[in-house]
Amino acid sequence: MKKGIVHFNEGEHINLYLLIKSAQRSVASNGKPFLTLILQDKSGEIDAKLWDCTPQDEEDYTPDTVVQVDGDITTFRGKNQLRIRGIRLTTGQDHVKKSDLVASAPMSINEMVDTMNQFIFEIRNPNIQRLTRTLLKRHQEAFFEFPAAVKNHHEYVSGLAYHVVSMLNLAKSVAALYPALDTDLLYSGIILHDMGKVIELSGATAASYTLEGKLLGHISIMVNEIGKAAKEMGIEGEEITILQHIVLSHHSKPEWGSPKPPLIKEAEILHMLDNLDAKMNMLSRAMEKTKPGEFTERLFAMDNRSFYNPLFEQKVTVDS
Amino acid sequence: MKKGIVHFNEGEHINLYLLIKSAQRSVASNGKPFLTLILQDKSGEIDAKLWDCTPQDEEDYTPDTVVQVDGDITTFRGKNQLRIRGIRLTTGQDHVKKSDLVASAPMSINEMVDTMNQFIFEIRNPNIQRLTRTLLKRHQEAFFEFPAAVKNHHEYVSGLAYHVVSMLNLAKSVAALYPALDTDLLYSGIILHDMGKVIELSGATAASYTLEGKLLGHISIMVNEIGKAAKEMGIEGEEITILQHIVLSHHSKPEWGSPKPPLIKEAEILHMLDNLDAKMNMLSRAMEKTKPGEFTERLFAMDNRSFYNPLFEQKVTVDS
Amino acid sequence: MKKGIVHFNEGEHINLYLLIKSAQRSVASNGKPFLTLILQDKSGEIDAKLWDCTPQDEEDYTPDTVVQVDGDITTFRGKNQLRIRGIRLTTGQDHVKKSDLVASAPMSINEMVDTMNQFIFEIRNPNIQRLTRTLLKRHQEAFFEFPAAVKNHHEYVSGLAYHVVSMLNLAKSVAALYPALDTDLLYSGIILHDMGKVIELSGATAASYTLEGKLLGHISIMVNEIGKAAKEMGIEGEEITILQHIVLSHHSKPEWGSPKPPLIKEAEILHMLDNLDAKMNMLSRAMEKTKPGEFTERLFAMDNRSFYNPLFEQKVTVDS
Amino acid sequence: MKKGIVHFNEGEHINLYLLIKSAQRSVASNGKPFLTLILQDKSGEIDAKLWDCTPQDEEDYTPDTVVQVDGDITTFRGKNQLRIRGIRLTTGQDHVKKSDLVASAPMSINEMVDTMNQFIFEIRNPNIQRLTRTLLKRHQEAFFEFPAAVKNHHEYVSGLAYHVVSMLNLAKSVAALYPALDTDLLYSGIILHDMGKVIELSGATAASYTLEGKLLGHISIMVNEIGKAAKEMGIEGEEITILQHIVLSHHSKPEWGSPKPPLIKEAEILHMLDNLDAKMNMLSRAMEKTKPGEFTERLFAMDNRSFYNPLFEQKVTVDS
Amino acid sequence: MKKGIVHFNEGEHINLYLLIKSAQRSVASNGKPFLTLILQDKSGEIDAKLWDCTPQDEEDYTPDTVVQVDGDITTFRGKNQLRIRGIRLTTGQDHVKKSDLVASAPMSINEMVDTMNQFIFEIRNPNIQRLTRTLLKRHQEAFFEFPAAVKNHHEYVSGLAYHVVSMLNLAKSVAALYPALDTDLLYSGIILHDMGKVIELSGATAASYTLEGKLLGHISIMVNEIGKAAKEMGIEGEEITILQHIVLSHHSKPEWGSPKPPLIKEAEILHMLDNLDAKMNMLSRAMEKTKPGEFTERLFAMDNRSFYNPLFEQKVTVDS
Amino acid sequence: MKKGIVHFNEGEHINLYLLIKSAQRSVASNGKPFLTLILQDKSGEIDAKLWDCTPQDEEDYTPDTVVQVDGDITTFRGKNQLRIRGIRLTTGQDHVKKSDLVASAPMSINEMVDTMNQFIFEIRNPNIQRLTRTLLKRHQEAFFEFPAAVKNHHEYVSGLAYHVVSMLNLAKSVAALYPALDTDLLYSGIILHDMGKVIELSGATAASYTLEGKLLGHISIMVNEIGKAAKEMGIEGEEITILQHIVLSHHSKPEWGSPKPPLIKEAEILHMLDNLDAKMNMLSRAMEKTKPGEFTERLFAMDNRSFYNPLFEQKVTVDS
Repeated sequence: MKKGIVHFNEGEHINLYLLIKSAQRSVASNGKPFLTLILQDKSGEIDAKLWDCTPQDEEDYTPDTVVQVDGDITTFRGKNQLRIRGIRLTTGQDHVKKSDLVASAPMSINEMVDTMNQFIFEIRNPNIQRLTRTLLKRHQEAFFEFPAAVKNHHEYVSGLAYHVVSMLNLAKSVAALYPALDTDLLYSGIILHDMGKVIELSGATAASYTLEGKLLGHISIMVNEIGKAAKEMGIEGEEITILQHIVLSHHSKPEWGSPKPPLIKEAEILHMLDNLDAKMNMLSRAMEKTKPGEFTERLFAMDNRSFYNPLFEQKVTVDS
Repeated sequence: MKKGIVHFNEGEHINLYLLIKSAQRSVASNGKPFLTLILQDKSGEIDAKLWDCTPQDEEDYTPDTVVQVDGDITTFRGKNQLRIRGIRLTTGQDHVKKSDLVASAPMSINEMVDTMNQFIFEIRNPNIQRLTRTLLKRHQEAFFEFPAAVKNHHEYVSGLAYHVVSMLNLAKSVAALYPALDTDLLYSGIILHDMGKVIELSGATAASYTLEGKLLGHISIMVNEIGKAAKEMGIEGEEITILQHIVLSHHSKPEWGSPKPPLIKEAEILHMLDNLDAKMNMLSRAMEKTKPGEFTERLFAMDNRSFYNPLFEQKVTVDS
Repeated sequence: MKKGIVHFNEGEHINLYLLIKSAQRSVASNGKPFLTLILQDKSGEIDAKLWDCTPQDEEDYTPDTVVQVDGDITTFRGKNQLRIRGIRLTTGQDHVKKSDLVASAPMSINEMVDTMNQFIFEIRNPNIQRLTRTLLKRHQEAFFEFPAAVKNHHEYVSGLAYHVVSMLNLAKSVAALYPALDTDLLYSGIILHDMGKVIELSGATAASYTLEGKLLGHISIMVNEIGKAAKEMGIEGEEITILQHIVLSHHSKPEWGSPKPPLIKEAEILHMLDNLDAKMNMLSRAMEKTKPGEFTERLFAMDNRSFYNPLFEQKVTVDS
Repeated sequence: MKKGIVHFNEGEHINLYLLIKSAQRSVASNGKPFLTLILQDKSGEIDAKLWDCTPQDEEDYTPDTVVQVDGDITTFRGKNQLRIRGIRLTTGQDHVKKSDLVASAPMSINEMVDTMNQFIFEIRNPNIQRLTRTLLKRHQEAFFEFPAAVKNHHEYVSGLAYHVVSMLNLAKSVAALYPALDTDLLYSGIILHDMGKVIELSGATAASYTLEGKLLGHISIMVNEIGKAAKEMGIEGEEITILQHIVLSHHSKPEWGSPKPPLIKEAEILHMLDNLDAKMNMLSRAMEKTKPGEFTERLFAMDNRSFYNPLFEQKVTVDS
Repeated sequence: MKKGIVHFNEGEHINLYLLIKSAQRSVASNGKPFLTLILQDKSGEIDAKLWDCTPQDEEDYTPDTVVQVDGDITTFRGKNQLRIRGIRLTTGQDHVKKSDLVASAPMSINEMVDTMNQFIFEIRNPNIQRLTRTLLKRHQEAFFEFPAAVKNHHEYVSGLAYHVVSMLNLAKSVAALYPALDTDLLYSGIILHDMGKVIELSGATAASYTLEGKLLGHISIMVNEIGKAAKEMGIEGEEITILQHIVLSHHSKPEWGSPKPPLIKEAEILHMLDNLDAKMNMLSRAMEKTKPGEFTERLFAMDNRSFYNPLFEQKVTVDS
Repeated sequence: MKKGIVHFNEGEHINLYLLIKSAQRSVASNGKPFLTLILQDKSGEIDAKLWDCTPQDEEDYTPDTVVQVDGDITTFRGKNQLRIRGIRLTTGQDHVKKSDLVASAPMSINEMVDTMNQFIFEIRNPNIQRLTRTLLKRHQEAFFEFPAAVKNHHEYVSGLAYHVVSMLNLAKSVAALYPALDTDLLYSGIILHDMGKVIELSGATAASYTLEGKLLGHISIMVNEIGKAAKEMGIEGEEITILQHIVLSHHSKPEWGSPKPPLIKEAEILHMLDNLDAKMNMLSRAMEKTKPGEFTERLFAMDNRSFYNPLFEQKVTVDS
């Protein structure tokens, strides 16, 4: 693999394709404007300064744009920075795609589409099946590209869909052990629960919160989407209210964003599976970066805990 | 005024028109079914037993039905009870209306309709005006008859509309002192903020929570109604999201039912005016029942406090 | 099935084998002692009075004793009571066992022993395997008979072992989806996590808290048992500390009884699986008693929520 | 208007009258003392260093002193700083007053005095009227000059009196809608509620907390002042206890500084009006600095929220 | 000792001097008024009914009155009650004093007065000494008779003074180990800290809360008393503010009634000694009623805990 | 006394014996490794950089090692730093001991050993006495050298034993005033309560948390130690459970680390004495650094409060 942006040291020169994650204009003490960019590739990100920028620069170099950059690595307070010497927009001839520069789910979109369709196919209640299929179609493009969150867990391209696929598989295993669970509600609820994020967030990459995201949040947005879709499709009945409830309650507590707690057993279980998959995602990734015998960095979304990676397992592996 | 149901003493015989507030079937130890009814008139309510009831009785005597009752007042653990001797449904010839038997707002429905129309007329933004007018029309009948709540404040017929009218007047006074406030958002937000209660509650009298009320709550219900109405009317734009936000945030904190806190200044003020009017309603009614120099009963919705009714005011009145 | 104690009505005479769940001596206003007993069979329990009891009665009729009772059903404040006319201890000739009178897990002890041994067999780390096997042996009898708790979930004979078996199966499914999980720690942790209950509680039936239970609690008791066993067996190493940690942290938060939160990923997952199985147990049993279209009674251990049993499922079942 | 201190850029030279807001002595690594000053004018404030200061400098340049300063703007970590070249105390001949250098209420002191006297005149209870008038007289000078707080709301010269005047007007409007309210208690309570700040804070400008402020707080200080004044004036009776209670409870909750919650209806309403006026003050000023379509900075005293300034209003204004 | 009121059984006749603890008038279902009294002697208390009472009875039989009662013990829901046959006020000729009928501190008032004077004598700062002596004089009578609280700890005659004496002795021991402590502040603070209770409560026996008690609380009352006394005595200086602070902060946290936390080291220690003495008082009395090997009743003021009385101590005593 | 490391200024050269408190390896932007050390002597500590370190350096310069250092004081962001020119390990010929470089308790180890033995001698219950003596012996060396904590209170060499000695003296005084207290439980409980810190922490100096410390905590560790020792010594009985309980509950609340609250009166009192001694330690030391008339720095472990050091005391001292 090509050397990524985070692997260069002070004093080195770089010439790379990078994605603009954020861009902010300021005025230097000499009165001239400059841009502070965050640039990223799959290896991570770096802060960069484009001094003496022109109005054209400000217009061109906006978030979510791929650029070709030429510059020097410097350090500021112990952190690498990029001093840009040359920068330009890319064209088709560069043969570089945004997806080459961002992390993404470890499963192809096609595979995820197929899995989800299979689960929808297994939904027996025709109203639930139709509604789920329709809403997935309506938001399909974004749904398979958006991250599950801006940070914390599954915060990469297609993270939302990958999180849903993992939860569906988990739900299938759990429902096999507890036959009282209604898989129609579980599967549909899982597919819909976070779908409002395609409206709450600004995009698949360089994502920020939209106005609707800030004022309503993905939960209320999605409860609405279900209500509007059901009305258009002429579907009525308790199923709709229950699906809206499952979405509404999936964060479980008011202080976590759900105005009603789960009052349907599948809503309670969905909340727990959501939690389980998100935590496994965070833990696995933190563990990968941690040697045996050491503690992970603090995980903010897990009450700021550091987890220990046991040493003894290795000894065992040696023994067996 | 005629002697109400709560003014009779043990041993007295009554013959009154009463409204069934709730009805519950049980089986006595002799194996025969009986009904436990709560019966009410404007003076208050009483528990009543209808022993050895027939299947026809069970069908007839359901909540929200006006009946003619003949019976004796007994006491059980220091509380009056009614032993029913005779009971029958009423007909047109009885010339009794449910509204004769329930408490209601101190303002006529017509007067409240007029006031609200006047405020809607003062809304300058055409989208907000149309949407508010349409939603009020759609739910008009229930809106002017429902209580504002099942208990605590404005829990009488037309309490919802009366609470809205009081808030509108309050908003007008406050906006006159703070001209930065947008009265369009305030007036529309006030009219819509609790409108979801017409779906959350079962009726104007003998109200209980509907399934939608329990699973979604009046806030989410109303955010939805706004979304669906705007879609039907082809209205788009920030106004809709902001009105939805005002409704969504009017309880101010997650633990009080609002998944987002107010993030628009009119949303913040609306929450405060809602609170002020509800508290004045509770305080005024508690004070009316309390002699100077004494404390009110504990007010559950005001942190269980008892308020003191000062003595000194009277002395002053005597002086002046 | 024979008519159980809760199915009799006021005025009926009974003659049954019953188990004493609790017994309390008082003195009547005439100065004579009497016993207040709670008696149970599989159908449920009833309060009973044995008036004018002798010192021999007091000695004989203690908790966890099977008796033959003859008496009359009366009612007191709407609740059935038993007025005892005759009572005696049972002997071998009665052919009645305590297990005939108490609810128990829906799986035989033998089957649970086999399952658990199979899981222990799959533990690859020899220290963990030996320690788990030894501790299970040491407490085997109680472990397979005790309830998982005094109330809330799995509160029946063998409830503890049944809960453990369910969690082991669940852990196997989940570990199949998330291969980063160490099944040695998960399986051993699950078998040991609640084992301290065999010391915390007084017995398999009519269970109350022991002094150690009240002063130390099952978590500290079990951390101790692991420490003492490891010392006796000469096992040292991080594995022991980690197993102690998994037991110590399995309630996840200080206010729920764990002085340390999970800091090992398997400890975190074990906590979630424990929760999931306990909640499924409570929800399934509450749902069984609730008709479609109605809400369950309030479930104290689930934040006092009532869960809704959907109606629509039935319609679907009818259709298919 | 003259260019204020915050409008200069790096490299510019300044020569301005400024007010010392705070002054701190340190010793540089070369062993010589220097002063770190915060200097302000109406436009805002700046950090400044006076190197190699003499003992006379330390004595002269203390908080709340007006100085004439000559120096250069530099930057340190992106923030402007002032390197002082020359500094001197001002004299009468400079014709500069402290009030030229600090922000103040948008109403003249005379106007506020008149308004408050008018409200006191409307108090009918003679004891309440005399006590209020006496206490206002006693603290008059400070009362009309102090800020309402060190930060957050009405934190400018005469902010305290301006906040009181706004609340009085608000109280008048609200009492007109809810005639049960006793305006004597409301008006007197409003005038007295924050009067303790004239003892809690050190002055009208460059305010810090006094020892009494830190150890007792303005609420306890004022409850005391009322008690002492009433004793001196020979006023007895419930009115005094009630006014003390209104002051004591005006922060509403123990964790906000009130050892008793409001137990008089006017105390409850006063708390709400206090809150409403403080929030309107914070919101209006934050909104003034925020363009339509953007969010305000985070407002610490409003749960750290950022408020949105709607875009749509402008469009409407254009339309109408 | 004569048999006390709590030692009689159903059916027995009594003829005793008793103290009225509370009295409430009601109207029976026959329309005639009756009094519900709580009557007490040193052994405890009993509920009593005086049927068909006259207006003279209502005037005579008020709280804190000693009466001679003749009546029969009955039971109601398992609790003894007294049916009054004859009742009369007592006169000098009865030779009965209220103090014969109420529990009181295990130390004479004279002894407590002496102890306290001795401690005041040891205060070296003249201002603190004079102020403490003056305030003690001013409230002396009530101070040596009132309970420390209505319930929970030291809730008997002279409980307040006894609690203060215990704390003074404790303070002396602790100050001997930590010489940094200022005994002037400690001794004066201890004597004054709860003195406001002589205004907060209605009397030494049958105590309830006064209006000042309910609206201001003993802490604010006492801060005021110190302020007024210092003003009268012409004492000024930091000592006064600090003593007021010690009283103000002695409950340590806002939610326990102190608007400021301790910010003087003696205030912090005083809070801890107050707590220690109150808890020892509650624990000792609960333990006296509890057999070895058993748990005390739940102690509401100690987080509702039940404490265990160890068995093993006895064995040791037997051994030695 | 020799000039300590914190008393040097920028530009000065030092040549001192210092103790390494912590050591961390990093890689500079030039790719070469360097060590960041914290070095200390009795006066305090300083950050130091050892550039271009060799593998031998990394091996030698680890925490808790005494070194001889030669270097220059520089400053970085207003804080002194040490640029190391020469560094070497010390040998016997340097005649420097670690104890010369660290702060320690104001009482000799011998004196503390004697005091503790005296208290153990006063324990009358033979089981408690033997167990306490044995555990103290087993951990004696560390027990008399370790700090009581890593920060906050008694965080110096022998701080643990000194804290225990202070608490024992305090317990003796308190038990003299409240004879109901069992001194056997108090003395033994005090000696054992924090003994687990000898396993939780890494050493007497430069202490960090061990793996057992992080995963189990000193409370669980010590409950275990008591259990294992009792088992080895063949001691059984309630005493052991009660001592384990006293240790388990000595932090009083779950959120402070005790899974059970005190349920034995001596456990409750021990918790309060622990608190009292820790707070006196923190307050005394903070006061020593604070001039009269000023506030201490914020004390993190005392709710972040600043305490006031009164001025008036001095005046009094002058007067008397």
